[in-house]
Amino acid sequence: MLKKIQKRLTIHNSSVRELLAEALGTYVLMVLGLSSVAQVVLGKGKFGQYLSINVGFGIGVTMGIHAAGGISGAHLNAAITFTQCVFGNLPWRKLPAYLLGQFLGSFLAAATIFGLYYDALYDYTKGNFTVTGPTATASIFSTYPAPYMSLAGGFFTEFMATIMLFLGVLVIYDENNNGALKGTQALLTGILVLGIGMGMGMNTGYAINPSRDLPPRIFTAIAGWGVDVFTAGNHWWWVPLVAPVLGSLAGGLIYKILIDIHNQHVQEHGNEKEQTQTVIESSTL
Amino acid sequence: MLKKIQKRLTIHNSSVRELLAEALGTYVLMVLGLSSVAQVVLGKGKFGQYLSINVGFGIGVTMGIHAAGGISGAHLNAAITFTQCVFGNLPWRKLPAYLLGQFLGSFLAAATIFGLYYDALYDYTKGNFTVTGPTATASIFSTYPAPYMSLAGGFFTEFMATIMLFLGVLVIYDENNNGALKGTQALLTGILVLGIGMGMGMNTGYAINPSRDLPPRIFTAIAGWGVDVFTAGNHWWWVPLVAPVLGSLAGGLIYKILIDIHNQHVQEHGNEKEQTQTVIESSTL
Amino acid sequence: MLKKIQKRLTIHNSSVRELLAEALGTYVLMVLGLSSVAQVVLGKGKFGQYLSINVGFGIGVTMGIHAAGGISGAHLNAAITFTQCVFGNLPWRKLPAYLLGQFLGSFLAAATIFGLYYDALYDYTKGNFTVTGPTATASIFSTYPAPYMSLAGGFFTEFMATIMLFLGVLVIYDENNNGALKGTQALLTGILVLGIGMGMGMNTGYAINPSRDLPPRIFTAIAGWGVDVFTAGNHWWWVPLVAPVLGSLAGGLIYKILIDIHNQHVQEHGNEKEQTQTVIESSTL
Amino acid sequence: MLKKIQKRLTIHNSSVRELLAEALGTYVLMVLGLSSVAQVVLGKGKFGQYLSINVGFGIGVTMGIHAAGGISGAHLNAAITFTQCVFGNLPWRKLPAYLLGQFLGSFLAAATIFGLYYDALYDYTKGNFTVTGPTATASIFSTYPAPYMSLAGGFFTEFMATIMLFLGVLVIYDENNNGALKGTQALLTGILVLGIGMGMGMNTGYAINPSRDLPPRIFTAIAGWGVDVFTAGNHWWWVPLVAPVLGSLAGGLIYKILIDIHNQHVQEHGNEKEQTQTVIESSTL
Repeated sequence: MLKKIQKRLTIHNSSVRELLAEALGTYVLMVLGLSSVAQVVLGKGKFGQYLSINVGFGIGVTMGIHAAGGISGAHLNAAITFTQCVFGNLPWRKLPAYLLGQFLGSFLAAATIFGLYYDALYDYTKGNFTVTGPTATASIFSTYPAPYMSLAGGFFTEFMATIMLFLGVLVIYDENNNGALKGTQALLTGILVLGIGMGMGMNTGYAINPSRDLPPRIFTAIAGWGVDVFTAGNHWWWVPLVAPVLGSLAGGLIYKILIDIHNQHVQEHGNEKEQTQTVIESSTL
Repeated sequence: MLKKIQKRLTIHNSSVRELLAEALGTYVLMVLGLSSVAQVVLGKGKFGQYLSINVGFGIGVTMGIHAAGGISGAHLNAAITFTQCVFGNLPWRKLPAYLLGQFLGSFLAAATIFGLYYDALYDYTKGNFTVTGPTATASIFSTYPAPYMSLAGGFFTEFMATIMLFLGVLVIYDENNNGALKGTQALLTGILVLGIGMGMGMNTGYAINPSRDLPPRIFTAIAGWGVDVFTAGNHWWWVPLVAPVLGSLAGGLIYKILIDIHNQHVQEHGNEKEQTQTVIESSTL
Repeated sequence: MLKKIQKRLTIHNSSVRELLAEALGTYVLMVLGLSSVAQVVLGKGKFGQYLSINVGFGIGVTMGIHAAGGISGAHLNAAITFTQCVFGNLPWRKLPAYLLGQFLGSFLAAATIFGLYYDALYDYTKGNFTVTGPTATASIFSTYPAPYMSLAGGFFTEFMATIMLFLGVLVIYDENNNGALKGTQALLTGILVLGIGMGMGMNTGYAINPSRDLPPRIFTAIAGWGVDVFTAGNHWWWVPLVAPVLGSLAGGLIYKILIDIHNQHVQEHGNEKEQTQTVIESSTL
Repeated sequence: MLKKIQKRLTIHNSSVRELLAEALGTYVLMVLGLSSVAQVVLGKGKFGQYLSINVGFGIGVTMGIHAAGGISGAHLNAAITFTQCVFGNLPWRKLPAYLLGQFLGSFLAAATIFGLYYDALYDYTKGNFTVTGPTATASIFSTYPAPYMSLAGGFFTEFMATIMLFLGVLVIYDENNNGALKGTQALLTGILVLGIGMGMGMNTGYAINPSRDLPPRIFTAIAGWGVDVFTAGNHWWWVPLVAPVLGSLAGGLIYKILIDIHNQHVQEHGNEKEQTQTVIESSTL
């Protein structure tokens, strides 16, 4: 009987499986990430501080990659999915399933965090959910720029932070260069995101991922924070969608031009003797 | 002579060995975990803060898994043992030995921490061990909900946090998907627990494990905190027993339905070509 | 010419090489550890907090093990060396060289930290180096019990903390059980020490190692803190020498009795089928 | 077409490729490192504390090594490049390309951080960029000694900290001793730098690397902080150039004399039986 049910539920279509994997992976990433923000904001500093948010998203990324990596490659980020299509590493026809999965997972994670912290949210805000002000809570779900930021500065921050993200991902996974040990790349990617948050989080909340930012924003618009979530920060909402895509493309291009294409040439032509030797020599005394 | 003693002490019965392994593993987990809570509470913030508790339990989990993993699989958690029985991965007849081992280890750990911090406890409380009030210390041993929590909210928090725990464990160990490198899974599981504590610890103290919560509670009832440890938080004590079991089952089910059964089908039928290729392509630029 | 010098300097005697390795490893451990204490104390909380000390010693242990592991096994701790002799894993005749190396490295590390932080020490104390009082600095070098501690409580703390240390080391390295991946054990041992410090550091400063405690204490006696370093804390100085040795022996015995001897029997007699299978089953859903 | 462009861009000269790799690696290191300083200083403690800086540089080092390791060996540090030339592990003729790459990457990183935090810098300083005073910001970019430091003390700190750096790097990578698992060395090197910062950062800001310090200093001189960046701290600027080189050389020499040359002899002559056995025995109970 159980076998039969299992057989019935089994999905053969790879796009559906990728959608499910991206949904689960993004869900895991976002539940661990958003909950750490909630605990810092609603705990008034007694249950964590800014560092907790950085670590929370880092661990979320690591676990999300373990959750989806074997099925979809664990993009968990619309900017990376788009970039992989541009670079020809993912067929364009697969883009919709990836994005849909990511957005679904992210939206459900926001709803989960809302439920999980409903009592605390109510206690903290007295039921008045706002985007700004002394008991603002919208930033638990999506990102807003700091008061001192110009729009150009904010755009550049998200652009640069995503360059660092994708550059980092590429070097962690590059087996032709000096990638991390297979099976530890998810951990390293989490550490990378931790580093980005500790260094480039203050200006704009380091969305660096449309799938991390838009679905929770839509959720908050519905769940009681209203249209302010789109108008706040000088209509900030579109920046975490556009800047990460450009940053991801730029990061990929930089790596290709500075490192990757020369490596590929060497591999194809086999004359890698000289510089490899230098590397070995110079990395051991 | 020594050889003879050794021979005499050798246990051939696998259930007894599993009991001992679960006892040792849970003891290690709980000594490292509870002691970090004690140091934060009794140290008045000068010897650690909330983050220390999260890290303490994370390291405890990692070391506990190293201690018991080769003998019993290192469940260290009654909810996971129960779930493994339900899913047919552990024979039901082995359940009692696992639970007994876990409860024994956890109880002894509570007693150890009581001894270790007796001087500090006395200094902090002037000998008045209470569950609530300005010098409450019962939360060093077992978990209590935050004042703002409803029972339903608390139950949901423990349920969700255990979903994340078991989902995380499954993806870390799944060799058909994108598991962590063999020999590093204990570390990753510790990091997972760190993440859960940083994001879902504020509401209820993230028991997520009956074996972590009940035995120390019984110990405190005996050791001077009295019957309050069971009545506090609107008779909270049963929630960390029931909610984690349901959460663990739900986490296992979610993973089976979204990822695992489709993977198993593919493996059995061998037509995994298409999506594997996509993964490889899309994880390298 | 260079070849000739090199040949001349080459040491063939394995005891001398082990002495040098233990000296270097303990030096690395202690410089990283003690300096983190100095930075917390002398930096008045602006350059780190208690957690920094725990992390500092953890990283010190990791690097010390990398430095000495291939030559001497990297004990870096007289209690562990002594225990290994008792258990027959190290010939007694090698004990003196190990201890001498460890003490030498530890003493030189204390001297190095004194030099490194001389300006800051002078600025902080106005040249008055004391063991107690508002600008006490002796605890940068060796450990002292907290004011509230009884001698028995302090002894028990050091005993228990060293049990956890050696238990942890054994499970991390045990290839018959569930040890850490080869090449990552140094990291895991550092994480273990981090956990011990975060949970069992408050009472007595977690010496858990005679080689960590005595040589810097002697250094401070000479360098200006005087005989107080031996009389303070009710003549505390001997406890970090004796308690860790007993704790280490107890930790080893516990592991042997609960886990190790049964594993060895199984290995010798080959009937490990049943329980191994259970483990595999129960660690994968 | 794309293939053609790629072919055109492909660089065959190994020195140019090493220059690019060192530039990218140092850029990654410095962007992650400097940005974490900026976030701590400009965030007034709400977005991180001193520990963040230590972690930021640690992660920067890890990612920088992943970025450049396969091409140039990822020195990312003029002191290490120089030392490798002295020890005969890198041909002297390669020195200029390495240094140029490192300085280029470091300078561009400083410029990037300036752009990224321009709004915050302006908000914090009201446009008045100073090296000292209540809103000093030059230390975001390069290092300055603490007010209590003597020049000799500062020099010794940088010397010692670089000894620890290079000693640590050597033991992490030494496959004849007890190096870290291949593919995890970048992570361990980052952890090493974290430890150095937590223990030896307070006195002088732990430059331990001319390539980390000089180019951002030049950038600040140009970008508005003026000539003060060279005169401050009693003309401090040359110390982070000279002391790390001497420290790196000393670290290499110490390791060669205490450990390495004896290991090499053993390997060549094959009589490594006795001590290897001791190690194995003593590292397993």
